[in-house]
Amino acid sequence: MSVAGKNVVFVGGLGFIGYEACKTLITRDLASLFVFDILDKPEAVKALEEINPKTKVYYTKFDITSKDNIKQSLADVIAKVQYIDVLVNGAGILNDPNVEWTMNINLIGLINTTLEAIPLMDKNKKGRGGVIVNIASVLGLEPGPPAAIYCASKFGVMGFSRSLGDPHYYEHTGIAVVTFCPGLTDTPLKNNVATKYTFDYSKEIGEKLNHSKTQKPEVCGAHLAQVIELRDNGAIYISNQGTLTKVKPSVYWEPTY
Amino acid sequence: MSVAGKNVVFVGGLGFIGYEACKTLITRDLASLFVFDILDKPEAVKALEEINPKTKVYYTKFDITSKDNIKQSLADVIAKVQYIDVLVNGAGILNDPNVEWTMNINLIGLINTTLEAIPLMDKNKKGRGGVIVNIASVLGLEPGPPAAIYCASKFGVMGFSRSLGDPHYYEHTGIAVVTFCPGLTDTPLKNNVATKYTFDYSKEIGEKLNHSKTQKPEVCGAHLAQVIELRDNGAIYISNQGTLTKVKPSVYWEPTY
Repeated sequence: MSVAGKNVVFVGGLGFIGYEACKTLITRDLASLFVFDILDKPEAVKALEEINPKTKVYYTKFDITSKDNIKQSLADVIAKVQYIDVLVNGAGILNDPNVEWTMNINLIGLINTTLEAIPLMDKNKKGRGGVIVNIASVLGLEPGPPAAIYCASKFGVMGFSRSLGDPHYYEHTGIAVVTFCPGLTDTPLKNNVATKYTFDYSKEIGEKLNHSKTQKPEVCGAHLAQVIELRDNGAIYISNQGTLTKVKPSVYWEPTY
Repeated sequence: MSVAGKNVVFVGGLGFIGYEACKTLITRDLASLFVFDILDKPEAVKALEEINPKTKVYYTKFDITSKDNIKQSLADVIAKVQYIDVLVNGAGILNDPNVEWTMNINLIGLINTTLEAIPLMDKNKKGRGGVIVNIASVLGLEPGPPAAIYCASKFGVMGFSRSLGDPHYYEHTGIAVVTFCPGLTDTPLKNNVATKYTFDYSKEIGEKLNHSKTQKPEVCGAHLAQVIELRDNGAIYISNQGTLTKVKPSVYWEPTY
């Protein structure tokens, strides 16, 4: 699906990976780009506008933990441009000592934003179909011992996103749902990471993970833009050390009749 | 690990699978069985006591969504019997229309109970090591389109439980962490299930899943007791249609150095 002429809502658009993805997306002649973020960086938004004047850029201060704010922000998009074609759920924190905060932002907030957006994008309702890309992590596929709470939240995104990627839903709504898993990427997520592990005795294994190879956010952002355009319903993609690969998930159980 | 002479805390012990597991466990001459549940069924607790008078049975009214209640209930166990040897996290609901409620019970409550129990079980702190069994579901391994929120919560349990099952943690605390995945089992979880799906248009695929083969809670309960005694740190077990199998999870990503 070409994103030229489309309206994109990017939750977490001022985060590192998110911002790089927005910089790539905006070169594709979007009609509009709505940057939803709790961060308030006018200069970053201005820089996006300057990349491609053909695209109207809007900034929305977005608190993903507030259902009212989710509802109002998405209604505002519809009021301005009538259709949401692409929703990218990219907000996320690493802060294992705060279980509720991690879950409210990384998982529950993502779910509530998606559930609010679906009827607005549903071709049978107010929308014209489109794509929802949920940013999980490679720690949504593999255990992350030093950050077990973060890992739980990203596994949760995986379960939710794969469930919505069922062909039945795609046929019904016209909305493809795709899960995107960044490998370890150079972002501030890891700033003073030693305070963010699950246990004090997680440090040893945390430091080890922390010294593994990473990738630049620019590469990951470009992969994310690519995944949006692929519109590959139900798929899981890993962006790791400069390579984008499609995951073929194993099947451990199936219902029998 | 034989559970004879041990102290077991069973969260959700009055649920269908939980109760059947308690009935099996109590035949193994536990020292004590603490049944934690929001449900209050004195006759069910009494029936457990009658199975094996050698085991002291305690009932605790347990609200897994309250951190204070979690703290108090576990402190009460220590006050009574000094050690927790086995913790089974078996509370769970299916109610997709209520995202927060599903997450607070199935995932956040399980995490908070586990984090509170670990220092009490840690051989380096107040405990003598032991086993934590987290009840996920086969929908913690596979997408569950009709119940995407339930599925997200159970994937979250999987990510959390597998992360805590790391050898580093087991060596440090002496607590084995195991994940147990019931297949579809005849329990009230599915009562008036049509009201519990993610979307109104989930019904069609929900009904299909609902007509797949199930197993009796007695079989699943016996498997759960078996998994507790295996004390197989980091393992994932599926109990499905009368068969207990150990999952060999695929590896999709590994850190590189």
